[in-house]
Amino acid sequence: MIRIGIAGYGNLGRGVELAAAKNPDMKIVAVFSRRDPSAVKTVDPSVPVYRLEEAEAHKDEIDILIICGGSATDLPTMTPALARHFHVIDSFDTHARIPEHFANVHAAAEESGHIAMISVGWDPGMFSVARLWGLAVLPDGADYTFWGRGVSQGHSDAIRRIPGVADARQYTVPVEEALRRVRSGEQPTLTTREKHVRECYVVAEDGADQAEIERAIFTMPNYFADYDTTVHFISMEELRRDHMGIPHGGTVIRTGRTGEGDAHTHVAEYRLTLDSNPEFTASVIAAYARAAYRMASRGITGCKTVLDVAPIDLVSISPEEARARYL
Amino acid sequence: MIRIGIAGYGNLGRGVELAAAKNPDMKIVAVFSRRDPSAVKTVDPSVPVYRLEEAEAHKDEIDILIICGGSATDLPTMTPALARHFHVIDSFDTHARIPEHFANVHAAAEESGHIAMISVGWDPGMFSVARLWGLAVLPDGADYTFWGRGVSQGHSDAIRRIPGVADARQYTVPVEEALRRVRSGEQPTLTTREKHVRECYVVAEDGADQAEIERAIFTMPNYFADYDTTVHFISMEELRRDHMGIPHGGTVIRTGRTGEGDAHTHVAEYRLTLDSNPEFTASVIAAYARAAYRMASRGITGCKTVLDVAPIDLVSISPEEARARYL
Repeated sequence: MIRIGIAGYGNLGRGVELAAAKNPDMKIVAVFSRRDPSAVKTVDPSVPVYRLEEAEAHKDEIDILIICGGSATDLPTMTPALARHFHVIDSFDTHARIPEHFANVHAAAEESGHIAMISVGWDPGMFSVARLWGLAVLPDGADYTFWGRGVSQGHSDAIRRIPGVADARQYTVPVEEALRRVRSGEQPTLTTREKHVRECYVVAEDGADQAEIERAIFTMPNYFADYDTTVHFISMEELRRDHMGIPHGGTVIRTGRTGEGDAHTHVAEYRLTLDSNPEFTASVIAAYARAAYRMASRGITGCKTVLDVAPIDLVSISPEEARARYL
Repeated sequence: MIRIGIAGYGNLGRGVELAAAKNPDMKIVAVFSRRDPSAVKTVDPSVPVYRLEEAEAHKDEIDILIICGGSATDLPTMTPALARHFHVIDSFDTHARIPEHFANVHAAAEESGHIAMISVGWDPGMFSVARLWGLAVLPDGADYTFWGRGVSQGHSDAIRRIPGVADARQYTVPVEEALRRVRSGEQPTLTTREKHVRECYVVAEDGADQAEIERAIFTMPNYFADYDTTVHFISMEELRRDHMGIPHGGTVIRTGRTGEGDAHTHVAEYRLTLDSNPEFTASVIAAYARAAYRMASRGITGCKTVLDVAPIDLVSISPEEARARYL
């Protein structure tokens, strides 16, 4: 059994507990939280919950520590700190800052002789592998990533900060025409606006100026100004009835050409349709935790990513069974 | 530069020569053929062509030998024999006999200190990875593989052997309703007949009995009897105008459930749409040849498959660039 610890118990940490239960070779042995342990309700009430600062005292009981914190402020400090005492895995997802995070984590993990796998999930994560795989098998080509239809937490939060907004959900939706052009193999150059639209469902406070809220959304730089955005005002009841899920997904498409005169076009597409973004992310993390455990047992140390993991290390079945049934 | 040799120069060998030209770190240094070398016309006429039995004499000039033979009779003997002298890669695709081929190749490669990567292409190959990846990230789920729309060489050949048939092409086509049900996440049990249909385009010889040809196709065991099959009689001109390509493709779909009460369903789909089956297969082989070369340079020996290869080893770019641009 791989003994797994969870550091941070929000949606993702809870998802990891549920995901581990689907894997016959994994056991959750500890949850660490910044909250008072008595306030943390795990799915399985027999899982011990400790304060985060107690983690180091439990390091001999844990094979892999899964760090379920936020990318903005938690992971940049938590992952290097915990990699000094544990083999760790995180889901750091600020794409632009991955090289910096990698360097910090690598130094800590290498010095202490641990493995630290970062940026695991579906994007970064499986979509990263799909993009690199596309480059590998169609080197003369182009890749495209579309996200959605799904809830963007960051964009929903941005709307909630507008005065007069009681609550909001924002869906990112790929533009069908852009998908069609990419799948045709034409390798179009697409602007931000041509790839995705943003749908906003907003609950306004009583007496709020809806036109002003719309204006604030439409003109918000980075978040909405570069997109075709639609705003729907709904009641709190409608929001609670129709918009409480956290679906997401997307697609990575690589198109490329081969042969004499580049006569032949090929399209490789990897698509995810997810009912629950955090639960699927957690399920991916569980599989890569297994790989990290195996790589650590071979003496591999330092910072690693999904790009470093062979598929066979992700599954509980034997190589013989994998070749016979899956090859 | 990775120095590549090609053993066997048909559609696939030619595809490998073209694929290597798309990769900046590869060079084709020799082609080996059972035919008279003067009869082998390579794309680049400066590539030296030798008789297959001369291969061993050139072993110091070649980093990886790509064996482009047939799975029925060539590869079961060629791959173990050549793995005694070279790091090799093949596209052995008789799924049921992979464990036996693996064992034979492994013994030869391990004894002589070589790496031998077998069953590389898209199925077995990338579809195998997609299936195993699905098992990894959605362990409580089911996977489905659909092939087509594409030309099945074996089924086309089977029709050509019927008396009165001058030429034929057979297309394997997935059933849309089956795809729809699988993508919905319902995890249906599907019969052979429910998954694919077979479309046959047949050129009959003058005076041949078309009804008898149809009957011979519809009742052919293994090939057609278990499928809904349609037969279209066309002229040789129509066949030459509309059916000379070798398109193929297919899709691997994994659906699975997560969360409390298995409340959430997720769908992961990997789909290929290929203008040229042999050229894409060759392009995949080129990428895995790079990985085999790197794994050999680390002292790894024995038989390996696509399931053993980390994505980073498939690409010519550096790990730093891969993390910055593709993660």
